[in-house]
Amino acid sequence: MTTEVDRDELIRRLTARVEALEGKATNESITLGVINGSLDYTMAAFIVAIGAAVYDLEVDMFFTFWGTAALRDPKKKAKKGFMDKMFGVMLPRGAGKLPLSHLQMLGMGPVMIKQVMKKHGAKSLEELIADAAGLGVRIHVCTMSMDLMGFKKEELFDYPHMDYVGVGSFVDMFSKSKQCWFF
Amino acid sequence: MTTEVDRDELIRRLTARVEALEGKATNESITLGVINGSLDYTMAAFIVAIGAAVYDLEVDMFFTFWGTAALRDPKKKAKKGFMDKMFGVMLPRGAGKLPLSHLQMLGMGPVMIKQVMKKHGAKSLEELIADAAGLGVRIHVCTMSMDLMGFKKEELFDYPHMDYVGVGSFVDMFSKSKQCWFF
Amino acid sequence: MTTEVDRDELIRRLTARVEALEGKATNESITLGVINGSLDYTMAAFIVAIGAAVYDLEVDMFFTFWGTAALRDPKKKAKKGFMDKMFGVMLPRGAGKLPLSHLQMLGMGPVMIKQVMKKHGAKSLEELIADAAGLGVRIHVCTMSMDLMGFKKEELFDYPHMDYVGVGSFVDMFSKSKQCWFF
Repeated sequence: MTTEVDRDELIRRLTARVEALEGKATNESITLGVINGSLDYTMAAFIVAIGAAVYDLEVDMFFTFWGTAALRDPKKKAKKGFMDKMFGVMLPRGAGKLPLSHLQMLGMGPVMIKQVMKKHGAKSLEELIADAAGLGVRIHVCTMSMDLMGFKKEELFDYPHMDYVGVGSFVDMFSKSKQCWFF
Repeated sequence: MTTEVDRDELIRRLTARVEALEGKATNESITLGVINGSLDYTMAAFIVAIGAAVYDLEVDMFFTFWGTAALRDPKKKAKKGFMDKMFGVMLPRGAGKLPLSHLQMLGMGPVMIKQVMKKHGAKSLEELIADAAGLGVRIHVCTMSMDLMGFKKEELFDYPHMDYVGVGSFVDMFSKSKQCWFF
Repeated sequence: MTTEVDRDELIRRLTARVEALEGKATNESITLGVINGSLDYTMAAFIVAIGAAVYDLEVDMFFTFWGTAALRDPKKKAKKGFMDKMFGVMLPRGAGKLPLSHLQMLGMGPVMIKQVMKKHGAKSLEELIADAAGLGVRIHVCTMSMDLMGFKKEELFDYPHMDYVGVGSFVDMFSKSKQCWFF
């Protein structure tokens, strides 16, 4: 028969194992990377973000590379050097100007797909971003990408839950998330 | 020394912590999103789906945006309005007609890659889909994307484990999955 | 009041539940798929891999489809048949020759973005690969893709932690990983 001392030892060991499992457990959160920067992929990211937030998951969005172009506010301007200015002109100026991911596939442009979306009562990217803000979805902008694209903080749109982060913060984010993937 | 009452309390607390961990634990399943709609990405998705199913993981595939075009059956037709008909013509009519993801990269078309695959004894997308069906891989079609693309249920191919879902179901799916990512 | 026999039974059951949870627990590792084969996506994959490795996560990278082209060493050659040779010429010869993912979006080529990266002190893909090697990041090459692309082992660059795997190994990898996603 098990003695009391044995029993205490069993409980101690079990507690240690539970603690180890708790250390590995994820939060009720997901991390969505946005790298592609096309209208369709960026919309898909926000649709998932909103859906997850509605179902009580916390959502961290990480915008990197071409993804950052969606965050530009067409009404804002920033002082820039020559090279950054050139990039600024070539890259889409905000959510309203994103291209489709598959131009070659379609023979149709973002204008056509936006008409179709309107007809079907689907929300525009700008409306999706506003919904995400209301639901507390957090936007984290990759500082390295901002540098690379020559974007300045003062030309991004106003968003209540936005900050600028490095790769370390991103690793931290996805390490504690239920899921992480890129659009 | 630990009293019996202490001991009972320890066990009760430990049980509560184990229950909390069990609530967070994932199923032996993965969720694969298919958004890109190119031949190579869609094949990659089915190859992973089949591999995972063979190793006893349950697999849920979520088809959205351009991904849905792979599900069209070229032999089926549906009544449509003008705009939907136009989209229907422009978008690939099923797995046999998907473009490659990187036309510009290659200077080669899907025809050439299919020849190479045949030469190497690799299965076609149609064969992969049949294998996936046999292994119980589930296909969930995004209703919003069906609307947007103007696709009707009656023009999708017959598949034994297919249903139509909204974003909520998708969130539910990936929340309990080991992994979720998009192709 | 709980008897000693009840208590032993409680502990036994709890131990079984903890064991079940431990069987499902993930390793402190992530799996990153590289499928796209563009300069920007492949760089993003290595930047995440390095960031994760610095923060003590083990990193497995799985190179498949176009992703494998980044692993070619431009100084190495391999004997090939006609078709494989043609593919070999059309596909990028190593990390230094990768295209951008969005040519149409930019009106700028890889040359321009490399200049910008240099100006901002960002590392080149070749330097990132060397850093990843130093941190123990593992590279797993999809054998099926090697066959399909007509690549031979002797034309890939030397990397201290590289092996060749099938889909089964990849499933094994991501099943025990905290996260898995594709670039």
